[in-house]
Amino acid sequence: MAETIAAPAASTGRRGKRPPVGEPVIERAFRLLAAFDQSHRGLTLASLSRRSATPLSTTRRLAEQLVEVGALERDDAGRYVIGLRLYEVASLAPRGLGLREIAMPYLEDLFVVTREHVQLAVLEGSHAVLVERRSRPGAVAVEYRIGGTLPVLNTALGLVLLAYLADDRLAEVLAACTHQDDLVAAGHPDAVERALAAVRQSGVATINRRTPVPIVAVAAPIRGRQDAVVAALSIVVPAGADPRSYEAVVRTAARGISRALRSSQL
Amino acid sequence: MAETIAAPAASTGRRGKRPPVGEPVIERAFRLLAAFDQSHRGLTLASLSRRSATPLSTTRRLAEQLVEVGALERDDAGRYVIGLRLYEVASLAPRGLGLREIAMPYLEDLFVVTREHVQLAVLEGSHAVLVERRSRPGAVAVEYRIGGTLPVLNTALGLVLLAYLADDRLAEVLAACTHQDDLVAAGHPDAVERALAAVRQSGVATINRRTPVPIVAVAAPIRGRQDAVVAALSIVVPAGADPRSYEAVVRTAARGISRALRSSQL
Repeated sequence: MAETIAAPAASTGRRGKRPPVGEPVIERAFRLLAAFDQSHRGLTLASLSRRSATPLSTTRRLAEQLVEVGALERDDAGRYVIGLRLYEVASLAPRGLGLREIAMPYLEDLFVVTREHVQLAVLEGSHAVLVERRSRPGAVAVEYRIGGTLPVLNTALGLVLLAYLADDRLAEVLAACTHQDDLVAAGHPDAVERALAAVRQSGVATINRRTPVPIVAVAAPIRGRQDAVVAALSIVVPAGADPRSYEAVVRTAARGISRALRSSQL
Repeated sequence: MAETIAAPAASTGRRGKRPPVGEPVIERAFRLLAAFDQSHRGLTLASLSRRSATPLSTTRRLAEQLVEVGALERDDAGRYVIGLRLYEVASLAPRGLGLREIAMPYLEDLFVVTREHVQLAVLEGSHAVLVERRSRPGAVAVEYRIGGTLPVLNTALGLVLLAYLADDRLAEVLAACTHQDDLVAAGHPDAVERALAAVRQSGVATINRRTPVPIVAVAAPIRGRQDAVVAALSIVVPAGADPRSYEAVVRTAARGISRALRSSQL
């Protein structure tokens, strides 16, 4: 299990834009796919070309090939959108829906007992990816989308995912965060290191945030085989709640998921 | 072409041979991705080559490029697995997690009220894809996996997805089903057409199944812009329940999702 879902270091730092000349077709195709994001789910040929920094003619040719295999689809307006076929294939990612499948009953338990937001995330490159969330309608608003990214600093999930990294991998992630607002907000590297040490000592990460909505988040690590931390589980409650009252329940649910992971075939 | 490279022992005997002339790289790459399924989530180079009917050397080169872009990852055992980066991109599929995001509160309501399995599916090619399911631990067992496929005949979701297709598209899907067991089970084409007409008339599809677990399923259409049926919602309950007692609640929830979809930007 751990072998399968441990974050591969190789995937870090490969997202930089490169000139299309001599670039392998697969890399160019994925640059097209990476042009989509939450506020750009449907792209015209021109905007796909612009956002992927790919010449129009190349964009057209590659996009049509991606439509052929189902990685892209065209909507009613003729815009390109990510295809359901890609979702089918991607649903087999052990660190995505594979993890989710195993974790879901525990998330469900935690949600039913607390009636608050419950979130599950993994590390990918230098950011965290939200794998699943269970939310009660009307619970305190949180801004992250399933399958979307969240910052590693200033989120309880992120701190847990960082706290157990090997030194060189941590340095790599923090270097990638340098230009992010949240590293500025997190303060001096020493402050980050102190925060991570506190997580390692207590086994939970706690965040009090005032913006955009005042919340308290408590997260705990999920461990796969060989005890490697492969994911994090959090609960998000309105500001003013005592985080200590949530530590036991989050840690307990995270341990349940860890045990299920270790005995799974992922 | 497929026959040529599917020859037994091709993967070892053709080392260094060039890939089939003319097949686009993207198509070949997706053939590699399509080699993964629920019971093959981790593949060695040799099994990836065999299952995708691609020469070993080509498989190695393409797989490494897919690892570069994060579409594949390698686990500690060296096996290839679908990468989380692919899940991130695919999460933007409007007919996948996009639909799920909008439908989730309604699925949740339906689940909370009934405490039974609630499922959401769309049509992809000649099969249905399960986009989401909400299940109570201990509810009647269902065999489908989120992101996985389910047959269009002999499932309530599938019948709904078929019932509103244009004639030529329906013929296409049914032709693709010819060799599937479930078409045999569904009986004569006339029987299928009668079943679909009944769905169109009542606005719901009902299935009583004895195997693998006796269940009753009731499904209703979800309509997007221009009233086109874009998805189906179902509830699955233990055999013996009166399906009519679930029709109103499923149709109501499906209408709620339809309304939300139409006012969304998807």
